[in-house]
Amino acid sequence: MNNINISSRLHKVLASPIRKLIPYANEAKRQGIKVYHLNIGDPDVKTPKVMINVLKKWIINPIPYDQSHGNPNFLESLVTYYNKLGHSFVKSNHIQITTGGSEAISMIFFAICQPEEEIIVFEPYYTNYNSYAVINGVKLVSVLTKEETNFHLPERKEIEKRINKKTKAILICNPSNPTGTVYTRDEMEMLVSICVKNNLFLISDEVYREFVYDGKKHVSILNYMQKLPKQTILIDSLSKRYGLCGARLGMTVSLNEEIMNGVLRMAQGRLSSGYIDQTMAEKLTEVKESYYKAVHEEYQTRRNVLYKGLKSIPGVYLEKPEGAFYAIVKLPVKDSEDFCQWLLEKFSYKNETVMLAPAAGFYGTKGRGKDEVRIAYVLNIGNLEKAIEILRRALVEY
Amino acid sequence: MNNINISSRLHKVLASPIRKLIPYANEAKRQGIKVYHLNIGDPDVKTPKVMINVLKKWIINPIPYDQSHGNPNFLESLVTYYNKLGHSFVKSNHIQITTGGSEAISMIFFAICQPEEEIIVFEPYYTNYNSYAVINGVKLVSVLTKEETNFHLPERKEIEKRINKKTKAILICNPSNPTGTVYTRDEMEMLVSICVKNNLFLISDEVYREFVYDGKKHVSILNYMQKLPKQTILIDSLSKRYGLCGARLGMTVSLNEEIMNGVLRMAQGRLSSGYIDQTMAEKLTEVKESYYKAVHEEYQTRRNVLYKGLKSIPGVYLEKPEGAFYAIVKLPVKDSEDFCQWLLEKFSYKNETVMLAPAAGFYGTKGRGKDEVRIAYVLNIGNLEKAIEILRRALVEY
Repeated sequence: MNNINISSRLHKVLASPIRKLIPYANEAKRQGIKVYHLNIGDPDVKTPKVMINVLKKWIINPIPYDQSHGNPNFLESLVTYYNKLGHSFVKSNHIQITTGGSEAISMIFFAICQPEEEIIVFEPYYTNYNSYAVINGVKLVSVLTKEETNFHLPERKEIEKRINKKTKAILICNPSNPTGTVYTRDEMEMLVSICVKNNLFLISDEVYREFVYDGKKHVSILNYMQKLPKQTILIDSLSKRYGLCGARLGMTVSLNEEIMNGVLRMAQGRLSSGYIDQTMAEKLTEVKESYYKAVHEEYQTRRNVLYKGLKSIPGVYLEKPEGAFYAIVKLPVKDSEDFCQWLLEKFSYKNETVMLAPAAGFYGTKGRGKDEVRIAYVLNIGNLEKAIEILRRALVEY
Repeated sequence: MNNINISSRLHKVLASPIRKLIPYANEAKRQGIKVYHLNIGDPDVKTPKVMINVLKKWIINPIPYDQSHGNPNFLESLVTYYNKLGHSFVKSNHIQITTGGSEAISMIFFAICQPEEEIIVFEPYYTNYNSYAVINGVKLVSVLTKEETNFHLPERKEIEKRINKKTKAILICNPSNPTGTVYTRDEMEMLVSICVKNNLFLISDEVYREFVYDGKKHVSILNYMQKLPKQTILIDSLSKRYGLCGARLGMTVSLNEEIMNGVLRMAQGRLSSGYIDQTMAEKLTEVKESYYKAVHEEYQTRRNVLYKGLKSIPGVYLEKPEGAFYAIVKLPVKDSEDFCQWLLEKFSYKNETVMLAPAAGFYGTKGRGKDEVRIAYVLNIGNLEKAIEILRRALVEY
């Protein structure tokens, strides 16, 4: 009567479009081909020395569990960080440390939705939201944003018509992975207004907060948190800000006590986030302004190089990304997944090739994004220029 | 029409009985009282120097994402470890690295069960299984085991009568947290036979594998994996074995390809486990036999001290734990939660007190375990003796 089949929901967790071509990249490398990785947002920004020094001077032994809520010193450092950003209301009990921004998103999906309830996202959106949605039984409802408006939000009515009685939240990524879009104050006000009118949570994933170019201003959800304490939720992470992708440190911030208490209970179930990572990250208050500035300038220059380089390739279309370090780029190909695989399997120029992420996996609507890729400009200028040249030649040959 | 209420399932995630009294412990500490922590399995076993040295010599910068499957070197070290245990069939593609054993259990619950499906556990069981069950919509069905049989398994028919068409698996923790029970070969054979007959998965959480006393032999599920490749799953963790609780490194091992592929897709969604932790843990192959031996002897001695000490307290009842570093102990109190809170709030002896975990949270059946506590004997002999003395005096005064 029983069976040892896996659950049908496991089938619904899809392979990451960012990572599923890795076997082809590994095979290319085995054949001695250098692969420029533009597929994954694993930047070469150096971790601040003050953090690395924590490792070098390590004496704590054994490595104990940390508190489920988060390392108290790390929490205090984060309070200082948010206060310095101008959000002086943030206290440590408004923050829950998570194992990467990933865990924060997953916990929040669970916390606010019953199975089958819905969250509105703007496609193309961060593909891993799909995994957390399936794992938590949540349905993502995607509203289309378009290349020609640089993926800014559509009109209010386009968003509101997707709201039904199962809708629990609107989720944005700001600045956006994968589009680089930085939402304007007007857009933020519109979202806030929609959420107030329709009684929805507004969740903002601001992992790329510091990566905003051309003097644009980032409008954080923290600006609206005191006004809407129950329904605003911040998702955050140190991964990109401090070159700490592998440290798996994220956080969620909210003034909604029920959510924070619930998320803490979830956190107790998995005991704690990494003790070493948190002890290291606690030093973020000692990171100098010059560090942020240098990183920002470097990325703005990379963005410029990428934009100019890609624009000069016939048939390639993109708008100038406003933030983060991604761009959704239209290529003169029919099936970008096939093209990306071909780049790794069949193509090389001077024994080098590039790895890109097919964009279809960033769309919730089947069939969309098939001629697009997501490019993460996480290489230094020299390598970025080489990668663009490889792409130019590959598109001719393909 | 919509609402900004949290999900009703979030209410079902309960506070950890191991951790929920922490605020009282913190308050006691603020008042200058020393608290002996017997509530949590955060042992004082030293992390091997060869691992700590990885931190001291750290040069990698930035800290990158690791592979979703796991750090390749760490995976190879684990293959060596399992092979050395006598399970030469284990290859790296049978292992998925997880962020603590916690994540491994959660992923496996998701992978094998649809919502509302059931997993049989033996109560008292590791309380955090409850969190993973609620988070994954799985129902734990608990079969009672008793103090007087040292929590060994009941007869086959007692287990089989709990199997219905929703049952997907039997889950054991061996050696058991919280009872210390080490299942015999006969018990393992019985479980295997039940799972074969009824088409169920058999999941064995063997985080405490090395902690088996009195010359008893641990019978791992790995012994049955080749015979039953589809339906056997190992949960494991380095936390207790190497003093790495805060390193958040666990793993699941199975020959079931569908499960391993699915779990890898889940892992891709959360990118990777900690890079630093894995780089450090990779050194496990360099840990000397003498390390394991010293840890084992120390814990066997602590177990002896605890057992003898507690047996000498009037009204206290326990059987001699066979493994792990926990004991379920019956106290002459009506409500152990009230007693544990009282120990922290109202009691001290020579300005010291003890923190214990009320056992009710380790039972699936309401009302059970109310006069019991779980004790983790994770203190050195001197402190353990002091803690027992405090408990003795507290029970007189309470």
